Amino acid sequence: MTPDEFRRAGHAVVDWIADYWATLEQRPVTPADPPGTVAAALPATPPTAGEPVEAVLADLDAIVVPGLTHWQHPGFFGYFPANTSGPSVLGDLVSSGLGVQGMLWATSPACTELETVLMDWLAQLLDLPSRFRSTGAGGGVIQDSASSATLVATLAALHRASGGRWRETGIDRRYRAYTSTHGHSSIEKAARIAGLGSDGVRAIEVDPETQALRPAALRAAIEADLAAGDVPAIVVATIGTTSTTAVDPVAEIGAVCAEYGIWLHVDAAYAGAAAVCPELRWSHNGLEYADSYCFDPHKWLLTGFDCDAFWVADRGELVEALTVLPEFLRNAASESGAVIDYRDWQVPLGRRFRALKLWFVLRWYGVEGLRAHIRSGVALAARFADRIRADDRFELAAAHPFSLVCFRLCADDDANTELLTRINRTGRVHLTHTRVAGRYTLRLAVGSPQTTERHVDEAWTLLVDTADELLAR
Amino acid sequence: MTPDEFRRAGHAVVDWIADYWATLEQRPVTPADPPGTVAAALPATPPTAGEPVEAVLADLDAIVVPGLTHWQHPGFFGYFPANTSGPSVLGDLVSSGLGVQGMLWATSPACTELETVLMDWLAQLLDLPSRFRSTGAGGGVIQDSASSATLVATLAALHRASGGRWRETGIDRRYRAYTSTHGHSSIEKAARIAGLGSDGVRAIEVDPETQALRPAALRAAIEADLAAGDVPAIVVATIGTTSTTAVDPVAEIGAVCAEYGIWLHVDAAYAGAAAVCPELRWSHNGLEYADSYCFDPHKWLLTGFDCDAFWVADRGELVEALTVLPEFLRNAASESGAVIDYRDWQVPLGRRFRALKLWFVLRWYGVEGLRAHIRSGVALAARFADRIRADDRFELAAAHPFSLVCFRLCADDDANTELLTRINRTGRVHLTHTRVAGRYTLRLAVGSPQTTERHVDEAWTLLVDTADELLAR
Repeated sequence: MTPDEFRRAGHAVVDWIADYWATLEQRPVTPADPPGTVAAALPATPPTAGEPVEAVLADLDAIVVPGLTHWQHPGFFGYFPANTSGPSVLGDLVSSGLGVQGMLWATSPACTELETVLMDWLAQLLDLPSRFRSTGAGGGVIQDSASSATLVATLAALHRASGGRWRETGIDRRYRAYTSTHGHSSIEKAARIAGLGSDGVRAIEVDPETQALRPAALRAAIEADLAAGDVPAIVVATIGTTSTTAVDPVAEIGAVCAEYGIWLHVDAAYAGAAAVCPELRWSHNGLEYADSYCFDPHKWLLTGFDCDAFWVADRGELVEALTVLPEFLRNAASESGAVIDYRDWQVPLGRRFRALKLWFVLRWYGVEGLRAHIRSGVALAARFADRIRADDRFELAAAHPFSLVCFRLCADDDANTELLTRINRTGRVHLTHTRVAGRYTLRLAVGSPQTTERHVDEAWTLLVDTADELLAR
Repeated sequence: MTPDEFRRAGHAVVDWIADYWATLEQRPVTPADPPGTVAAALPATPPTAGEPVEAVLADLDAIVVPGLTHWQHPGFFGYFPANTSGPSVLGDLVSSGLGVQGMLWATSPACTELETVLMDWLAQLLDLPSRFRSTGAGGGVIQDSASSATLVATLAALHRASGGRWRETGIDRRYRAYTSTHGHSSIEKAARIAGLGSDGVRAIEVDPETQALRPAALRAAIEADLAAGDVPAIVVATIGTTSTTAVDPVAEIGAVCAEYGIWLHVDAAYAGAAAVCPELRWSHNGLEYADSYCFDPHKWLLTGFDCDAFWVADRGELVEALTVLPEFLRNAASESGAVIDYRDWQVPLGRRFRALKLWFVLRWYGVEGLRAHIRSGVALAARFADRIRADDRFELAAAHPFSLVCFRLCADDDANTELLTRINRTGRVHLTHTRVAGRYTLRLAVGSPQTTERHVDEAWTLLVDTADELLAR
């Protein structure tokens, strides 16, 4: 494809996306077709000769789009948001077009340096402890996801807990990881990948009122493991759990970690974005204890997946744990020690220029624009929670400090399951569920920049109408 | 940013990329500025108020682009290529614009189904063994990189080698991984991440003529480990090593693995793309022994990073090793067993819709177009190797079955180091180096679709002119 062919086809694809966004609200949020529908509509073999881009766009419309769940739809309230925005798409487009590799500073210096500066910008934006800035001993890096951030933190923690032997000897003792029973599944997955096994993870009980980790229970678990001869390696605290956005008491947890010399990783995948607003920074109290911290701009900060922002307080520990240096990557800049080689901060070797999408987002919106986005989500969630509170047929299942509301119909689990199924079947909204204290609970997470009061009110109307049907049974 | 603002800014960014590609050849391949130059030119804080896209594009031109190594430049011959193409950029642009999540089938069915079909297309394109097709017990998935593919293969291998205990108990014995001394550094990194430590990796000697793993040495190492009570878990064979594109004897290695029940992973990160051409499929002999296989369309198949294509012969083993199921991800489709949930095939939970870029590439070029691209690279490398062969001042350091040529000036390591430094300093080309049998060796890897005979000849002229200066010392 020549540059001029790209120019023409590129304009067509940009227009296609603009039209998709402009008409998103008219589509059902989720498809209703059974498994295999999309696959059956595609040819079984690749084409022998090339085809024009228009043919692919036609099949995109006819086959692919009808089979999507539309995560950017204003009626999408499932999971946590994975919102994106125009400037993010454009920054990522530049990254695709440049096609450079940022594995080493030397493989494309600007790719590394823009990322380092952007991570310092983000640290300021969230008012993170200064120990995470690259101007000191720390620094930030973009990971694909919070799962990978937790894995990398676990590896650095193992290296520390082993007294620096882990890199050579591997898992030679029983190391332990700790998180609350509401910690994300990626914590167990990271521990499994790292060779601790599911048995190596201690799920610490939460306060039944707040769903937050109980520090006394953490201390007891650590002391029991030490008494058994095991080695506590890492504690993962969560700011904004996936089930209910509970906030673990990071300061108290941090004090325990400091006492026993255990790595503290703080996972704020979704709720970290809230810290752009000064009035929500209470959620990050105690973060000065953390050895590492991450949040996902790709969840609630208008930046497309994949973009997890991960910081460490001591980049030397991380690099020492992960570096492997073959001859074909040796270069003068790395050996000078004056540069960052981000390949040593992550699992993969190769790196896309992901800082560009963050740069486009931060510059287009500015600090004030990003605050407005977060405040809009919090206000919409509060508006929805007010409806729940005012209606005796429903109850809130947890606090809603951010943009997620957990609630249920005052009825049994079956009725709530049926409620969720029915409102999702309308195609107007998409909500998902969790369990709180064992009970089936609906989750409404606001996040799309297209979501307005009208969409939240429509979700409420659907819920009320369906509840009437169910309660009348 | 409204859809119409996106439309206008999007056209400008597409034009910017088209202009970048059209003028790429006029730029120096690599920047000459010292570390810190780009960072120093950027503000220390994010903007308070938003800025227009034009302001960002202006800074891209003024600050970022001068600090890049241009991997798509026709004079880029370093590492392995990471080539992209117009259709890949457009497919990825659609992915960014849709912003859907493919972690579960249920989170966006078409995202999963298109990927499954595309991986079957690719398996046909490379004529891979039928056991890797999703229509049987196997299947393919897109990973970010071959590093992650090797890691995932290592985890599944550990689960098998432990008799299914690893998932719960973790690393409870001394497991071993095997690869040649020319195996990629990501194999050691994967073993380290998985908790085997560097000590758990056996680097098997290579044939000094072919740089390919010696099966007899592999067998001896396995038997020694078994005798010591250790557990051989995985062998990683390479088709196209990073140093010299050596091809390990996969059939002989596979027979050893079959005899001892060891997982065989075949890493064809760069050279796998060659198998689109029937005349190069000899390189994949013996692949029917493999439990898993990967290659990178993002290296030599015109698809932008990140796109590693990874297949397993038994998807059940992989999923069993990696699955963790929290309540908030439970859904009827997953529980029916009728769908693929790709989150269980990879380290992260979240997934971008990466199949789109492959789809755009396969349809724009067709099978014949992709074969023409590979053949062009092989022919250009052969043309360059002919120059080396015909000139007594130079020697080839290895065979060149694909598009990489390893060579050196008939002089000492210092002269070759200086040769590389001087030709790279011209800004016209960028080559990198390795060591073969301990000797400093230059690598010229062809891969950019913009590279033609003229560019290879220019590289040759630069080498000859510089060699004259050096040999005259």
